[in-house]
Amino acid sequence: MARVAVDVVIKSEILDPQGKAILAALTRTGHPGVTSVRQGKHFDLEVDDTVSDEDLEEIAGHLLANRVIEEWTVTRIAEPETAK
Amino acid sequence: MARVAVDVVIKSEILDPQGKAILAALTRTGHPGVTSVRQGKHFDLEVDDTVSDEDLEEIAGHLLANRVIEEWTVTRIAEPETAK
Repeated sequence: MARVAVDVVIKSEILDPQGKAILAALTRTGHPGVTSVRQGKHFDLEVDDTVSDEDLEEIAGHLLANRVIEEWTVTRIAEPETAK
Repeated sequence: MARVAVDVVIKSEILDPQGKAILAALTRTGHPGVTSVRQGKHFDLEVDDTVSDEDLEEIAGHLLANRVIEEWTVTRIAEPETAK
């Protein structure tokens, strides 16, 4: 069993109003050091050994992301993540 | 300037209907190897050197995530990511 993270964000050339709103909020609440924010979707998948990297690309590109306006990255996470 | 990824997901003990729906769709479309899906939010931040790891934890825990039902991970990305 392996864990896979798929992150989907809006393409950089497309306006991201949510990201802009978060950036403004961060500046207002005393975090001027943050210079840009893009918000997207994060998927934590658990997959068995039958799922290849090509399968993951197909899953990400056809089901999890909208190819027209979004770009994605697929990352296999070998060891368990420590979440807060 | 550094890039930081903040991933926010619903705590595992809380029902994730979106994740369940995606899992069902993946199984229907020929990906039985995927055994679990959790959907959350992904944030790509660009920060300057004034932003410390403590600042990032505060940003994630107070602004980007709802501590009651969500957990988060903060990852500093040193080199530029190659997105598809």
